[in-house]
Amino acid sequence: MKLAMIGLGRMGGNMAERLLQHGHQVVVFDPSDEARQRLAKMGGEPAESLAQAIEKLSAPRIVWVMVPAGKITEDTIQTLIQTLNPGDIIIDGGNSNFHDSVRRGKEAQERGVHFIDAGTSGGVWGLTEGYCLMVGGPDQAVHTAEPIFTDLAPENGYLHVGPVGSGHFVKMVHNGIEYGLLQAYGEGFEILKASDFPIDLPKVAELWNHGSVVRSWLLELLAGAYRENPTLEHVRGYVDDSGEGRWTVFEAINENVPAPVITLSLFSRFASRQEESYSAKVIAALRNQFGGHKIHNE
Amino acid sequence: MKLAMIGLGRMGGNMAERLLQHGHQVVVFDPSDEARQRLAKMGGEPAESLAQAIEKLSAPRIVWVMVPAGKITEDTIQTLIQTLNPGDIIIDGGNSNFHDSVRRGKEAQERGVHFIDAGTSGGVWGLTEGYCLMVGGPDQAVHTAEPIFTDLAPENGYLHVGPVGSGHFVKMVHNGIEYGLLQAYGEGFEILKASDFPIDLPKVAELWNHGSVVRSWLLELLAGAYRENPTLEHVRGYVDDSGEGRWTVFEAINENVPAPVITLSLFSRFASRQEESYSAKVIAALRNQFGGHKIHNE
Amino acid sequence: MKLAMIGLGRMGGNMAERLLQHGHQVVVFDPSDEARQRLAKMGGEPAESLAQAIEKLSAPRIVWVMVPAGKITEDTIQTLIQTLNPGDIIIDGGNSNFHDSVRRGKEAQERGVHFIDAGTSGGVWGLTEGYCLMVGGPDQAVHTAEPIFTDLAPENGYLHVGPVGSGHFVKMVHNGIEYGLLQAYGEGFEILKASDFPIDLPKVAELWNHGSVVRSWLLELLAGAYRENPTLEHVRGYVDDSGEGRWTVFEAINENVPAPVITLSLFSRFASRQEESYSAKVIAALRNQFGGHKIHNE
Amino acid sequence: MKLAMIGLGRMGGNMAERLLQHGHQVVVFDPSDEARQRLAKMGGEPAESLAQAIEKLSAPRIVWVMVPAGKITEDTIQTLIQTLNPGDIIIDGGNSNFHDSVRRGKEAQERGVHFIDAGTSGGVWGLTEGYCLMVGGPDQAVHTAEPIFTDLAPENGYLHVGPVGSGHFVKMVHNGIEYGLLQAYGEGFEILKASDFPIDLPKVAELWNHGSVVRSWLLELLAGAYRENPTLEHVRGYVDDSGEGRWTVFEAINENVPAPVITLSLFSRFASRQEESYSAKVIAALRNQFGGHKIHNE
Repeated sequence: MKLAMIGLGRMGGNMAERLLQHGHQVVVFDPSDEARQRLAKMGGEPAESLAQAIEKLSAPRIVWVMVPAGKITEDTIQTLIQTLNPGDIIIDGGNSNFHDSVRRGKEAQERGVHFIDAGTSGGVWGLTEGYCLMVGGPDQAVHTAEPIFTDLAPENGYLHVGPVGSGHFVKMVHNGIEYGLLQAYGEGFEILKASDFPIDLPKVAELWNHGSVVRSWLLELLAGAYRENPTLEHVRGYVDDSGEGRWTVFEAINENVPAPVITLSLFSRFASRQEESYSAKVIAALRNQFGGHKIHNE
Repeated sequence: MKLAMIGLGRMGGNMAERLLQHGHQVVVFDPSDEARQRLAKMGGEPAESLAQAIEKLSAPRIVWVMVPAGKITEDTIQTLIQTLNPGDIIIDGGNSNFHDSVRRGKEAQERGVHFIDAGTSGGVWGLTEGYCLMVGGPDQAVHTAEPIFTDLAPENGYLHVGPVGSGHFVKMVHNGIEYGLLQAYGEGFEILKASDFPIDLPKVAELWNHGSVVRSWLLELLAGAYRENPTLEHVRGYVDDSGEGRWTVFEAINENVPAPVITLSLFSRFASRQEESYSAKVIAALRNQFGGHKIHNE
Repeated sequence: MKLAMIGLGRMGGNMAERLLQHGHQVVVFDPSDEARQRLAKMGGEPAESLAQAIEKLSAPRIVWVMVPAGKITEDTIQTLIQTLNPGDIIIDGGNSNFHDSVRRGKEAQERGVHFIDAGTSGGVWGLTEGYCLMVGGPDQAVHTAEPIFTDLAPENGYLHVGPVGSGHFVKMVHNGIEYGLLQAYGEGFEILKASDFPIDLPKVAELWNHGSVVRSWLLELLAGAYRENPTLEHVRGYVDDSGEGRWTVFEAINENVPAPVITLSLFSRFASRQEESYSAKVIAALRNQFGGHKIHNE
Repeated sequence: MKLAMIGLGRMGGNMAERLLQHGHQVVVFDPSDEARQRLAKMGGEPAESLAQAIEKLSAPRIVWVMVPAGKITEDTIQTLIQTLNPGDIIIDGGNSNFHDSVRRGKEAQERGVHFIDAGTSGGVWGLTEGYCLMVGGPDQAVHTAEPIFTDLAPENGYLHVGPVGSGHFVKMVHNGIEYGLLQAYGEGFEILKASDFPIDLPKVAELWNHGSVVRSWLLELLAGAYRENPTLEHVRGYVDDSGEGRWTVFEAINENVPAPVITLSLFSRFASRQEESYSAKVIAALRNQFGGHKIHNE
């Protein structure tokens, strides 16, 4: 079918490419001329602006928004809500907070526009392996866009999980779990590394992918990372986060659900980014006060 | 090659079966007559006692010990150390603490007997899929027994990780990671369940195995568990532990390694087994003292 | 000086009483006739309504709002903002979220009314020992109301901590710390209780208040609780929360500050309120799948 | 009464001084001549060796051991067990693990020597304020030495908590709690510091000691630390530990007691001492693999 892909970065570009490979007609827009040209060479129909991209579609228009989370997503979706016609479909495949998706769904609905939130997992591997899609939105619109979802996803890798917002909600929890998985592996390899036994970490990472209980796609990737860089040389122990982890903790707390592992995984990322812990300074000062314990000077 | 399998429970029985399937000669011993007979029917050579099992072997004798952790493992291995001849090989494939394995290795070595600790992962699926084997021990003995390891394991699923003790050490950390992975999934599904969105948990478990970042063997098993029992009916939220998790925490602490996720996973198991938290009683009593906050009576 | 106290519950009633004891004129209002009468007998000037309470004051009117957090606080403050005159002062001494206080401060300011947020600690002991007051608001209004603050507080127990919102912010963090302190004591006494040593918990609670590093006001209260009820009989291990703990975690996350202890204290409260952990159900089901580990049936 | 104080460091020296102030006869020994001379000037009877210190006592001899934890404590106590006569009393006031104290108690008992473990809290303030003493040991010996305990402690600051080992056990848990309290304050002040509100941390530390729920001796010390050094200038956020925290976690795990706050406080100390988290390196490498997330280079 025909759709527009707005945003041709690492995710949107690959998704457009995958859709083209599956025979869809994809109008492509990105502020970067280079990105547009890249997709045009693959068969995409480049647009010079969001408005032009819309013009190139016919009713019901389907516009997939794949731009960075934050103001640009908000602006793009608001523009689409104002510009599209009743019956048209907006799909937000980005890392939006599900509360925003619920709100945007209502705002779109007031103008008769359908809004779908498509939580997307798979990262840079999605182009070849397919993207796991967690889709929230009204039944009919989801049904209309389904050929897109099934071609973006691997077999059984697409699910209409519920009403608007539920797609990004499920994706958020997915990422929360991911934080915990990553931290579990991280701790394990740190314990192995600190051991007196001379453990070969790359070999263990590879080994565990064959028959062990902890085998997983992430562990395959870790084995791959170790193959490329056995000592993780020049890799700084500094871990960013793109928001879903903290949102997961917020929701856990709102639901009164204890989520120690997901939360501690988030806090470990915070700690990795601190030059020094002020809390530790306070404790060092206090231990000196009550026990005369030595302060390590800066 | 020829070896004796001591202990024919869930793990030892399946391992003997897998070795027989791969053409090895396996002397089998277990206090249970039924277990011995089951393996005899598959081609195992039953022994009536540990002593008889040893007699049926010829030098260098290889004895695989697969009995429950604790006193029975200690007794079996001590008997073997005293009974076997120099050059014979004991392999402990059970859930022993690596400190015990290091000690047993020394005790065996004093009598010229080789001791190998083979950390084994794979659970009930190992029979068909192979066991991931993390093997510690002296080079020559490990080399001698290698045909056993390679046939028990799937391809690339066996590694000689280091000296005596290192096999059980790596297996211990493996299980520590497993605790963290399980808890990460557990928390995620609890957050999904507590949501106002009507999420179909079995479908999400299945979905995430197709293209998502969190796909793993454990998640495939969870999808399977949900297929069998979508509401987890009659499954009590009570989680046992068999020791490796706590040992992992002990070692992390001994190594000065922060391991919040593995530790909190262990504590969550403890909490699942408590009727009531005494700590919570103390806090409830205290909140009443300072703030007049209501005590919920028993 | 003269002021109105709106809300004569456990906190407001005691605060009105303490102000009367210090010679202030206090107009008292509460929907409960009994509460009004109780304060009237102590010298308070009862009002039949919020409107009447305001009428009984003269410019600049000072109205202290001490009603339960939530809708009733919002409604009361909005009414006051609409009713009071420029130059009048609203003081919110309740458990409001500081973000609400910042907003209410702006709304009040637009009508020329001064808004002060007074974080209040001390609980049921404040009447006799004084309330620790963390006050946020514009300098001049805080200065005007200062005689009230200094008489409600014990010596040095009042501080103007910053602009509007900062009072409730500091109070929120105070409560977050309190969660951690409570949980630290709770865990310690649970470890003592589970020991094979026959430790007399009430005696240890009392002992530690004399010369030990962990002595504190909370520990004095715990010793008191144990004196009244040495076995904590009938005290259910069920711990409520009134919001400040979760807000503290939210702010820690917003600030990228790791706060494991405060957060785990909150999660322990959540767990104390769960009949059963769904996460534990998931893990129990999974362990059965991979290892054949026994499920405990419900 | 008469006793020997072995070890005249920060703790032992002050304790000898306090006992001399209370009229006891104290034989003092320390390898440092200067330390011996200091106590001699206060009225202590200096000994040139452990053997000479014992000679200066008469039956039943009471020897208080206050030397650093580890080999020197072990050696000193073993020498005393071999040297003293039946009926004599050894008191270990140091930071020994309670398992060692239980063992030493048995070893002493075999020679008829009494062994008492006296957990000691109070730090550098004990000289003037008294030491909180948690004493384990046989009734009669504890009774004999009681005048020492009551004079070292403030009023009600001494308790015979149970049999040998229980003194150090209770002290261990005390320190575990202390870890949690310190971390709770540390986190709170870090959250205050990271806020956009311009909070004056030293003033808040002082404020909270007056009427707030979180007031405590530690908070008084923190206020003192801030008075001396309002910005904690030159105080590195690096926190040592002397063992009791990790022992508390070990015992919690042995008892199946969840102790998240005490454990996370310990892990925060570990993290404060790491240049970089290897776990974070692993996660950074992994995030790059699956999502193309940028690695921060070293």
